Parts: sequence; structure tokens; C-alpha cells
Amino acid sequence: MTAQQPAPKDTPNTEVNAVPAATSTDELARILSAADAAASDWAQRPAIERAAALAAVADALDAAAAELIPVAQEETNLPAGRLAGELKRTTFQLRLFAELLADGGYLDARIDHADESWPMGARPDIRRSLEPLGPVVVFAASNFPFAFSVIGGDSCSALAAGCPVVLKVHSGHPRLSAAVGRVAATALHDAGAPDGLLQLVYGTQAGRDAVLDPRIKAGAFTGSISGGRALFDLANSRPDPIPFYGELGSVNPVFVTQAAAARGAEIAAEFVASYTLGAGQFCTKPGILLVPEDSAMLAELATAARPGPAKLLNDRIQSGYTESLQELLRHDDVAALGGTADTLASPPAPALTATTAAALLADPSGLITECFGPAALVASYRDEEELLAVAGVLDGQLTATVQGEESDVVAPKLVRVLAGKAGRVLWNQWPTGVSVTYAQQHGGPYPATTAPTSTSVGTAGVTRFLRPVAYQGMPAHLLPDALRDDNPLGVPQRINGALAP
Amino acid sequence: MTAQQPAPKDTPNTEVNAVPAATSTDELARILSAADAAASDWAQRPAIERAAALAAVADALDAAAAELIPVAQEETNLPAGRLAGELKRTTFQLRLFAELLADGGYLDARIDHADESWPMGARPDIRRSLEPLGPVVVFAASNFPFAFSVIGGDSCSALAAGCPVVLKVHSGHPRLSAAVGRVAATALHDAGAPDGLLQLVYGTQAGRDAVLDPRIKAGAFTGSISGGRALFDLANSRPDPIPFYGELGSVNPVFVTQAAAARGAEIAAEFVASYTLGAGQFCTKPGILLVPEDSAMLAELATAARPGPAKLLNDRIQSGYTESLQELLRHDDVAALGGTADTLASPPAPALTATTAAALLADPSGLITECFGPAALVASYRDEEELLAVAGVLDGQLTATVQGEESDVVAPKLVRVLAGKAGRVLWNQWPTGVSVTYAQQHGGPYPATTAPTSTSVGTAGVTRFLRPVAYQGMPAHLLPDALRDDNPLGVPQRINGALAP
Repeated sequence: MTAQQPAPKDTPNTEVNAVPAATSTDELARILSAADAAASDWAQRPAIERAAALAAVADALDAAAAELIPVAQEETNLPAGRLAGELKRTTFQLRLFAELLADGGYLDARIDHADESWPMGARPDIRRSLEPLGPVVVFAASNFPFAFSVIGGDSCSALAAGCPVVLKVHSGHPRLSAAVGRVAATALHDAGAPDGLLQLVYGTQAGRDAVLDPRIKAGAFTGSISGGRALFDLANSRPDPIPFYGELGSVNPVFVTQAAAARGAEIAAEFVASYTLGAGQFCTKPGILLVPEDSAMLAELATAARPGPAKLLNDRIQSGYTESLQELLRHDDVAALGGTADTLASPPAPALTATTAAALLADPSGLITECFGPAALVASYRDEEELLAVAGVLDGQLTATVQGEESDVVAPKLVRVLAGKAGRVLWNQWPTGVSVTYAQQHGGPYPATTAPTSTSVGTAGVTRFLRPVAYQGMPAHLLPDALRDDNPLGVPQRINGALAP
Repeated sequence: MTAQQPAPKDTPNTEVNAVPAATSTDELARILSAADAAASDWAQRPAIERAAALAAVADALDAAAAELIPVAQEETNLPAGRLAGELKRTTFQLRLFAELLADGGYLDARIDHADESWPMGARPDIRRSLEPLGPVVVFAASNFPFAFSVIGGDSCSALAAGCPVVLKVHSGHPRLSAAVGRVAATALHDAGAPDGLLQLVYGTQAGRDAVLDPRIKAGAFTGSISGGRALFDLANSRPDPIPFYGELGSVNPVFVTQAAAARGAEIAAEFVASYTLGAGQFCTKPGILLVPEDSAMLAELATAARPGPAKLLNDRIQSGYTESLQELLRHDDVAALGGTADTLASPPAPALTATTAAALLADPSGLITECFGPAALVASYRDEEELLAVAGVLDGQLTATVQGEESDVVAPKLVRVLAGKAGRVLWNQWPTGVSVTYAQQHGGPYPATTAPTSTSVGTAGVTRFLRPVAYQGMPAHLLPDALRDDNPLGVPQRINGALAP
């Protein structure tokens, strides 16, 4: 089945074709109650059981790929190859978190034995590790129907941490969400997990109501600045505010040094490939490229080959995209760059626009803004002082990239400034294609996220849904296993300040 | 000099006797600008230099003890012995954080080498460690004029993390704050630290303005629920919200099991000692004691010896205390317990009040509330089911304590419920006297704190002021030292998911 082929209209699987209705208040109450009931059971399961359940979900999703991918194609316009890759990423992620659970280092287990000679005064026996926060509401993203949706990075992190998930379905792929939800819930059930561990809710109101419900102990979101900020504000408006991890927006600037412009044609080709990947619908799309004005790069970019038009995720995103692009083109200091035919059509051909670094500095909030879709802005700079000045006015970013040479005098300072602004700083690579690893960081200061101390990709994401609990003078049989002297789980323990060998 | 003796009126050190005026808007602008200017310098200092500066502050404070403690006595009514102990704790803490910096484990350095065979697809070289957030505004507490004030736990954590501190002085001890600020700033300067690293601001408006200033990247607070919530709301109202770590309020309940009531007289004596320690002005004061109704404990508590009256920190706290106690005594289900003479006087004699667990369950928000000062509420319960029910209705707590026997059938369930509510769960010990250690946890769900995933005591507190930054494909000379393959700092590194030996 190719990307463009619709599912047969008369498929016998009516469930897959029905778009679920918005969750009613009564349904939501039952869902929240079930999540609450599952919380302490799931929290107390040995990590190895939680790991096995995550791996079982991965296996079930892999087995259902042929059923799921066509539904995803229909609802998102994404090609089958891309969706298959994304599903692979999703199931890999579940298995990687299962490994993390088996290792136990994520618990940050610390044991301080009682010490009469502790310099500030005798200290008692204190032991501390991380425990689950409780039920989490996760808002799915539009642009990763597998990897940031029903059982994507946020859900996987929360379930691994020991927290039930109430998943607010994204309106862009409700039928896929329902199908993935069924596959995952069945696999969890068959693996012996408690019911109510992963439940779906539909509709804006149900999502908002869940954020405000006292049984929900944290929220996670990937999406727009306006949507994420509204939910963040709701979470903080509660009588008992909760952590809210929103991944909102980023322009992911790329800085080409003067020396690097010597390989301008190569950089131009790679840049076009990166900003048009997935029709420009990645959180890490490089939206702004800084190039030296006294180079051939503007010409090289204008003539660089671009891929053809590609359908965006849905009509709402298409119309938002053309509005953003039109507004940018109305700006006095912005012009189209290179081929402009069909860039405002549906589906759109990739667009490039041009401005100057001076214009960015004069109107950063007008020009340094995310345009979700296959467009990017090229800004020419006068000298590397001006390049540093642009780096200095950036808001928080998910990524910032330097295309440079190792001999660049500006590089150390530029990398330092960018590290102060972005969660990930790249050198001669491109920000799209975020690998799920131990060291990955997908986050950054606001508006990249609402929680700069956290990541939503990579194994470190699990800590978002954990809180430390210390036990003082506690008998062994009342301690969590990770904190017992006989260490039955074999987890890494920091004893009296030093990691045990 | 004793606790009650005022400083000589004609001391030649006029600086120590002058109460600083509220910080003006212009002064605040200069202070914030200086903090901002210091940030990148301090962030890039080798950890060993930051450690040396913290240790130098500790030495300078120890050397100034004879000057500082009398000023603290005058302003807080706390006895000299207690203040000397608190100063010792404060300087110990600075030296412990200096050790943490030398170790480097707090950086959570992670290195993932490029891997062509990574199951989700070839991964690039990614390296991640924690970097300072930037300038932090710290709000000093009233009740620990050294340990939670100018250079207490929050300032120490922020400076260790690499963040300049703008310290909002508590109005209860402004002259001491100015004196400590001078000693600390001089020591930092002499240790080669940048100017603007630790600056004091006075007055509510300056504190609020600092929270809203874009140069401030995080806030920390210890104090009341109303004050902390107002600042938390301000921090979240910014165009760019920032992390705000508030430690607000806790009643620190203590649960005496039926079996433990056999040692009721001993528990009663220890409880009185704990809730009256420091005239009940600790965040961890045990404010509620649950005892079995079919035991001698109510009588034992009524007759337990209490210490004499002690002055509270200041007049505002005295009047707030008597108002809270009077309001509690007006509650239909509350009666005074044991000696009641002078409990509403100034200085107050310690007070005990009594109610039932059934009353707590009927009106949790009316009865389970913090009363800052030397009072506690004893609630008698019918059976251990009711004890568990009370645990279940608690809001977030800094601590919860069980006085039990190892054979208690209720203990495993009770400890689990309390671990879901509190940052620290104690067994047969008392919550006052919070040791500064590696495993300490001083935090908890709201309203204990505004950030349940963090601690404000212990070495783990440093992570509040750090954010992860990843580097992808970065040449060695542009990486932070902690992330280099040759590991020049010798910090612990997690390489490809496993801690390097």
C-alpha cells in the first residue's frame, strides 16, 4: 500500500473507521477514577514487571504495523516509509526504557548510614530514591502520530516511571489513536498490568478537565506555544499546582561561519533537505539560517534543488502554514528567495525567504518565529560580531546548530552563547532526526519548553514523572527494595556519597 | 552575651546597627545587571574554583561568628547556642557543596558515541551534562537566619551550580543579613569570584520585581503558603515562566500505632521536645499527633512536662501565632489539652490541643493546617483503619512520621500511603533537625513545596539550578571539560548508558 492509497471504504473492521466522540464528563470521571485506582498497584510493581509490560507493548505494535500504518497514512498524509520508521522508533523506545528499568540507575538510590561523627552533628540513617508522581495526563502531538502520541515518548516515560497515563488524543489522528490504544491496552492487560493504566480521552474539554482534576499529578504536552501555554497556565492555576512539561516551539537557528561558507553549496543542499524533511513539520526543523553576506551562499540557496510539493498533516495545519508564510512575506525586510511557484498552494512547494541579520536584531519577535511547515528564513550577516549578536537575542530553543570549521575563532564564544539558549547544540550536523539515546536532550528554556530542567526525548525523560522520597530510620522490611542494604534488585546505590562499586 | 542581652547602643560599628532601606528601582536595575554580567563568568569557572570560593565563605563566616551571632540574637530572639549550631550547619553545608563540586557526579555527564548499529537507526555522537540556569532570586526565610537566609541552602545550591544569587532579605533580620552579606561578598571577592555574584535586595517590591525580571532565570523561597504561592504565580505569569522552588507549609503528622502506644509516656516526652524545639518555629515541627483513643496517651500528653515560655522570632509571628491558636480553639471539635496557662501570652508557653481523627476526616482543611509556633494538635483515633484514612486525606507534606513496632500489621500500608504524601518518612524518630546529607530530601507535593521533584536540603538541591545541554558532533575543544573523552576533570561519566569504572 503506498502513501497515497486510501484504506478500502468497506473494510470489515468498523472500529478502525469510526472516529470516536468527545469524552463526556461522566466518562472522564470513570477514566480518572480508574487511573487513580491503578496508580498504587503499578507504582509498586517490581521494575522488571513494568519493563516486561513495555516490551510487550512494543512487540504488539510491531505485530500490528500492517494494520496501523495505513490508518496513519490516511489521517496524516505522511508517507508509509516515514511512518514505518517512526513506528520502529516508537517500539525501540519502549524497549530502551524497559532496559532502563532493569538497570535501576534512574532511581538515583542514595543511602546515608547513621554517622555520629557527621561534622554538623550526628546524622540518622537516611535513604532516598525516586518514586512515581501518580497519574499523568499526556497531550499527543499532531506531527508524530506514533512517536509523540498514544504510546510515544511522554507515555512511555510516565509508564516506565510507574505512573498511569490519561492520553488526550490529538484531533488530527483519532482513529489511529484508538487503534494504537487498543493494541497497547490489550498488550498491557495480557502482560498482567492493572486496568486503567493507559486510557484515551477525546476533545479539548476533556483534556482541560483532566489537567484540573486533583487525581492528575503531572502533565506532558507537545504542540504549539499557544496551546501549551494555556495548559501550563491551567496546571499552575490549580489549588495544588502540578508539574507541567510542555514542549512548545523552536526556530532551531543554524549559524554558518564565514569560513564554513566555503562549502556553501553542500551546506545549502543539506539545509534544504533538513528543513523540508517531513514537509517541515518537525519540532527541530531548522527555521533560520545565518549566512555571511559576502559569500555565494544566498545564490547557492536560491538555486539549491528543493523537493516537490507534499501534503501537510491536515487542512488546519495547511491553512496555518500559508497564513504564517504570507505574514512573513508581508514584512518589509523579507523577500522570497529562489523559486516561489506553488509555495502558497495546497499542497505547498517548499519555500525560502530572505532577510538580514540587522533586520532580525531590529525585530526579533517579528522575524524569529516558528513557521510550522516547509519554509525557512535565510538571514545574511555582515560580520561575526553580528552573528554573535543574533545568537544573543534568541529565545529558548530546542536546538541551535553551528556549521563551522575547527579553526573558527568565533566558535568557542558562539557555542557558549548557544548552549545558554538551547537544549542541544550541534556542530556540522542537522537538528532534524532526534535519536533516542541515554545522552539525548530535547528541551530548552521557554518557549522551547515550560520546564528547562527536563527532556522529552531520551532515557533522562523518565525523571519528569518521579519525585524523591527519603526514609529515616526505617526498618529494612518497610524500605523500597532499591534502598535495602542487601540490594535485592542489584540497582546502583550511592552509599555515604560515593557510588558503590 | 546571652540571648536576651541587646547589643550596645553605642557600638562603633554603625554598619551593623543600621537597618538598610528598601532597594530602589534604580538600585535593583544595577543589581540585576551585575548578576547578569557575572553569570557567564561564574558558569565557566572550573568547578574547583567555585568550590574554593564556597569554602572561603565558610571560613569567613566561622571567623565572624562572634560578630554575627549577637546581631542574630537581637533580631530573632533565638538563643546563642541554637544560632551557633545553625551557623555551624551553614558553614558545613558550604563545605559539603564544595566537595560535591570537586566530585563532579552532580553534572550527570553522559556520552553516547556515534553508533551505526543503533537499533532505531544510526545515531550521532551526543554528549550531555548539566549547566547553570543563570541568575537566581532567593527569598530568605524568617526562621533560619543563617541556614535559610543570605548564604543558606538555596544560595549555596545556586552558587555551587554556577548561578549568581540576588538575595531578597527577610524583614525579620535585615541587619544580620547585611552583615552576613558583607562577610560573604568579601570572601567571594578575595577568592577571585566575579563581582555581582551574591547581592542583597530589601523590601517586598524589589523581590517581586526581581521575580519578573527577564535576567532572572529561577526563584527559590522558604516561607508561608500565601507568600510563596503569590511569588510562584508571579514567576509563572512571566512571558517566559521560570522554575520557582518554593518550600511553603507542612503539618508533619505523626502516627502512633496501637502497639507503639505501650511506650506512650516516652513518645509523649519526645513529641513535646520536638514540637517545642526552637519555640515550634521549624518547617518540620510535628503539628499533629495521631494516638489510639483506647490508650493512656492523651493523659500522658496532658501531663508531659513542657518547656517554659520562649519569645517568638518577632511581633508579627507572635500575633499570627496567637490568632491561629485562638481560631483553632474556637473549632467545635477542639479542646485545650493539659496546661493552658500563658499559651496565648507573649512570650507564649507551649500549647497542646486535642481533637479526634473523625473530626480531622470531617474537616481536614480546617484542622490539618500549619500553626507556626509552639502548638500541636493531638487527634485520637478509633482503629487503624481510621489511622489509614487520616493518612489518605493529607495534603503534601515535608515529613510524615510513624511511631510503630516492627510487628505492626498496619505499618507497610501506612508507610506506603505516607510516602505518597511526604518528602521524608520517619520511623521512630522525630522530623525536627534536618541533617544536610547526600540522601536528605526536604520537599514534597504541594503545599509542602511548589516543585515536588526537588529538594531544598541536601546535596541533591544543586540540580534545581541546572539544566541539561546536549552537544552533537562537537569537536573536543568546544565541549565542556566534563564531556571530553580524555575527562580532564575526572568526573563520573555515563558512557553508552553505563557508568564508566
